Amino acid sequence: MNIKDKSLEELETVSQDIRDRIIDVVSRKGGHFSSTLGAVELTVGMHKVFDAYSDPFIFDVSHQCYPHKLLTGRWEEFETIRQFGGLSGFTKPNESDADYFIAGHSSTSISLAVGAAKSIKLKQEDRVPVVMIGDGSMTAGMVYEALNELGDLKLPVVIILNDNEMSIAKPIGAISKHLSKLLAGKTYQGFKDRVNTFIKNNMPEGTTYIAKRMEEAMKLITPGILFEEMGIDYIGPIDGHNLEEVIDTLELAKGMKKPVIVHARTVKGKGYEIAEGQHEHWHGVGPFNVEDGAFIKKAAPKAATAVFAEALCALACKHENIVGVTAAMPSGTGINKLMDKFPERFWDVAIAEQHAVTSMAAMAKEGFKPYITIYSTFLQRGFDQIIHDVCLMDLPVVFAIDRAGTVGNDGETHQGAFDISYLRFIPNMIVFAPRDNATLEEGLSFAYTLTSPSAIRYPRGAFMEVDFPIVPFELGKAQILKEGKSKKLFIGYGAGVGRACETEKLHDEDIAIVDLRFVKPIDSECLKDLATRYDEWYVFSDSQKQGGVGSAILEFLNEENINIKLTSFEYEDSFIEHGDTKLVEQSLSLAPEDLVKRIK
Amino acid sequence: MNIKDKSLEELETVSQDIRDRIIDVVSRKGGHFSSTLGAVELTVGMHKVFDAYSDPFIFDVSHQCYPHKLLTGRWEEFETIRQFGGLSGFTKPNESDADYFIAGHSSTSISLAVGAAKSIKLKQEDRVPVVMIGDGSMTAGMVYEALNELGDLKLPVVIILNDNEMSIAKPIGAISKHLSKLLAGKTYQGFKDRVNTFIKNNMPEGTTYIAKRMEEAMKLITPGILFEEMGIDYIGPIDGHNLEEVIDTLELAKGMKKPVIVHARTVKGKGYEIAEGQHEHWHGVGPFNVEDGAFIKKAAPKAATAVFAEALCALACKHENIVGVTAAMPSGTGINKLMDKFPERFWDVAIAEQHAVTSMAAMAKEGFKPYITIYSTFLQRGFDQIIHDVCLMDLPVVFAIDRAGTVGNDGETHQGAFDISYLRFIPNMIVFAPRDNATLEEGLSFAYTLTSPSAIRYPRGAFMEVDFPIVPFELGKAQILKEGKSKKLFIGYGAGVGRACETEKLHDEDIAIVDLRFVKPIDSECLKDLATRYDEWYVFSDSQKQGGVGSAILEFLNEENINIKLTSFEYEDSFIEHGDTKLVEQSLSLAPEDLVKRIK
Repeated sequence: MNIKDKSLEELETVSQDIRDRIIDVVSRKGGHFSSTLGAVELTVGMHKVFDAYSDPFIFDVSHQCYPHKLLTGRWEEFETIRQFGGLSGFTKPNESDADYFIAGHSSTSISLAVGAAKSIKLKQEDRVPVVMIGDGSMTAGMVYEALNELGDLKLPVVIILNDNEMSIAKPIGAISKHLSKLLAGKTYQGFKDRVNTFIKNNMPEGTTYIAKRMEEAMKLITPGILFEEMGIDYIGPIDGHNLEEVIDTLELAKGMKKPVIVHARTVKGKGYEIAEGQHEHWHGVGPFNVEDGAFIKKAAPKAATAVFAEALCALACKHENIVGVTAAMPSGTGINKLMDKFPERFWDVAIAEQHAVTSMAAMAKEGFKPYITIYSTFLQRGFDQIIHDVCLMDLPVVFAIDRAGTVGNDGETHQGAFDISYLRFIPNMIVFAPRDNATLEEGLSFAYTLTSPSAIRYPRGAFMEVDFPIVPFELGKAQILKEGKSKKLFIGYGAGVGRACETEKLHDEDIAIVDLRFVKPIDSECLKDLATRYDEWYVFSDSQKQGGVGSAILEFLNEENINIKLTSFEYEDSFIEHGDTKLVEQSLSLAPEDLVKRIK
Repeated sequence: MNIKDKSLEELETVSQDIRDRIIDVVSRKGGHFSSTLGAVELTVGMHKVFDAYSDPFIFDVSHQCYPHKLLTGRWEEFETIRQFGGLSGFTKPNESDADYFIAGHSSTSISLAVGAAKSIKLKQEDRVPVVMIGDGSMTAGMVYEALNELGDLKLPVVIILNDNEMSIAKPIGAISKHLSKLLAGKTYQGFKDRVNTFIKNNMPEGTTYIAKRMEEAMKLITPGILFEEMGIDYIGPIDGHNLEEVIDTLELAKGMKKPVIVHARTVKGKGYEIAEGQHEHWHGVGPFNVEDGAFIKKAAPKAATAVFAEALCALACKHENIVGVTAAMPSGTGINKLMDKFPERFWDVAIAEQHAVTSMAAMAKEGFKPYITIYSTFLQRGFDQIIHDVCLMDLPVVFAIDRAGTVGNDGETHQGAFDISYLRFIPNMIVFAPRDNATLEEGLSFAYTLTSPSAIRYPRGAFMEVDFPIVPFELGKAQILKEGKSKKLFIGYGAGVGRACETEKLHDEDIAIVDLRFVKPIDSECLKDLATRYDEWYVFSDSQKQGGVGSAILEFLNEENINIKLTSFEYEDSFIEHGDTKLVEQSLSLAPEDLVKRIK
């Protein structure tokens, strides 16, 4: 849809249409909801003032990109959002030339804009990178690293700070207080002078009238000292739902030819009254009834996250030295319940994985037992800190890794594929996993007893049910679940145990199953023993094949000089697409029915 | 040495003794020099005001910790600094209870202090974490993440900002400009009021006299708006070589019971005139003549870094779309020469590895060919960005990984052990290595032709010499260097090829040698062919064994159902200590003489 020539009135209609479309589709299909509704006018403004096919449009995290998708040729296809084979819930260049970059992790946008701006300068082109970033994303270190260079180089970049008070409603950190103060501020007296100076220096004669209108349009202006001190101009706060104000300000910012932050105040869920101003509840949703906002719930078995939260809560009641942290995922990781119950011992440090890991390393040194609760994919941000601050010091930090394995509709950027591969080679690290709810509880208690760093992983959603006796965890000990008459052996790890059991049921042979439990240290004795009875091994684990569980077993077999043909049903060497978990697994031939066929 | 009861005059003598000792030992043995000389009075001040055995003393990067080591029972042992089996050049808890944490990577200190402060609060103790951080370390995102939480929680932490104008002499980023502005500032009028308010609120009656003296002692006060906006009190700048000023200010800061930044201006190399104010040249040094500052040079073969810099320079002359970046290691990586020659195309983005990776991803998207030149151990900081911003987008960014393998005297925190293990499982990534100077040149040209991300690694210092014909790199192709009469096969990767050749020469059999060249994609055809002639394989690579080169070959062998006994001479599962490279390699039994024995 080309909206360049549309009048303000027409653009308001476009905004309403976008909103209606989002409410209609998301209420039926589910998806990110309130953040994307809050960004409608800002996005329309971006498309009015800039050109998405030329100016790099960079959406931070990009879950607020639905209006952008609707404006760039994906109106009908929007029906397929986040479904297998359909549109991604994030920006994705192979969907549209209007999508500059993939984004699913927070706070990469300003770095991307700096790279784009450097390129544009070298190519002597006249494009301007435009960033839309939420206030919640402003806490990550990457943002600061990028602002530091941008404020120095002074390259033209327009940064729309979409402040929906995400981090203000639940104040995390000094930055959110700073933003909060800005929002509370009144018209800044110096602003008129700045605008006038800008007009004098930059505008051709005769355009004063337009400039004056711009000026009037901006009602609330306070100085963003923090940004100004970093060398970035600051305009705002403006009303991010007032299309005229948005467009006028973006025009002004575009003309400044230097880095500018446009601080826009928006309301999450704007236009769908039931969701307005709500934060976590309406952020990402399943299908719901548009009339009353009631979620259309499907009966689902208990999620591992819920089991984790309850078990850790019980454990924290028992042991006063347990502390914990989340990086801006309190309800996602279930740790919100512990934050409520033990406000002095559990923290949300905002999107700050590096700091989360290292600050907890110090607490472990002080005798506390920290549980870092985090998604597999986001822990990648704390990788160096795991090595340098936790493992080198051999400190008993527990990494409670949620969303291990495929994650469904979020897709590529969020898959928890790599944690085993990036953790198991780090000296001192213990890497283990539960197979079901009961062993997750057991595992958390066991982790408490360890004197070295450990990582325990569990999936998004529920474990497949596994019905074998629970034995306590013992460091480096596997559990043989059943012997078999066949020469085959199924080795399950974590949620892979359930998959192994399902596959065994569907298979016509009686096959032995072992729950590996520990990738590191691996149970050499048990595996050596199994090798005497079974010579065809199959590995079931929801993890990357390269460097993964199968690889660890191959290292063991080679070390012990045991010749066994091993087949690993881990993920092959490519990124995994989004969609319903079952469909994704089928596409990877990892559903038990497929595995039976692959084995035969 | 207990300096608590010493007078100011005595402390000045202590400072001089420390300085003399450092100059004496480092001139004979080498080590970090100018930063540690610049921190003498600040460290003496810390020990006078705080207690290193109780208050967590946290030295950022910690190469400035020599005065601290000398003050905490290591005066004689200091003779062994950075030597194999001797003292570490960094803080290390197993050396002394006065060393709170290991540190070798930058910018972890404030996170550690936050963790310590949370712990102290929970334990209801009366200790205060004290951080010493250089201005150069203030650019990393971690610092900002930590300040964000600290400014919110307001826990008592004293942060000594040791501003030796490292980042000001070579201005990088807006932060350094901000600090620079602070240094240029004059006495801040409001300061007296603040001190008086503080005195009224915090000091018992009758102590006004002491407070007044403190106040007088501080000559230059300007407000650190940036820090104040983040909720951290700011005092400074003070003269970091004026012991009285240092002690008085630290006393004041300690009494404030909240987060405070004490901004101290110091001179690198202070007390050794030839080094004073010099930045890179005297940062870390080999032995030198104290009289005239001349370095005692040993004849050394050409370092890989130098070869890299020259080759990349030639390549950049030829291809205008080559750009590059370093994260605060311009001379360490050799990229300083390119920054001089092509100031528009090569950047130092300061200690900001995350931003370095992601900003270059955008440049690749814009059609440029970025070379990210970085040490193996520091690239760990950009791990998530490699996956999420480079590989997921399949962008042709080249990671030129210096200091791969052991690094000598820096030791544990700096070993380049893990890069192969943490890169080879990432989809789209090409992982390869040159074996010597000539193939490094070749490899850089080859990397230019790739359309996917690639990682090329080379060692600290020089490659061992290898004398085999150079053939051009071809994606996924190994090079058979020689066939052999024995059934053994030596597989070399990168600098491991030289080690394989040396070992072969010392061995009494005629052994085949293959230069693997690519860990990913691996040369299946060549390896299958070799398997028909040789059935006892040995892997030579300077990398972690778990998930490393041997592991990649095992995955291949298993996939192809080939039964070969493989022995990998990679690093075992522990962190590697510091010391002369030869001694370290001997301790790991990786010297060719040892390897011959291990094979037999």
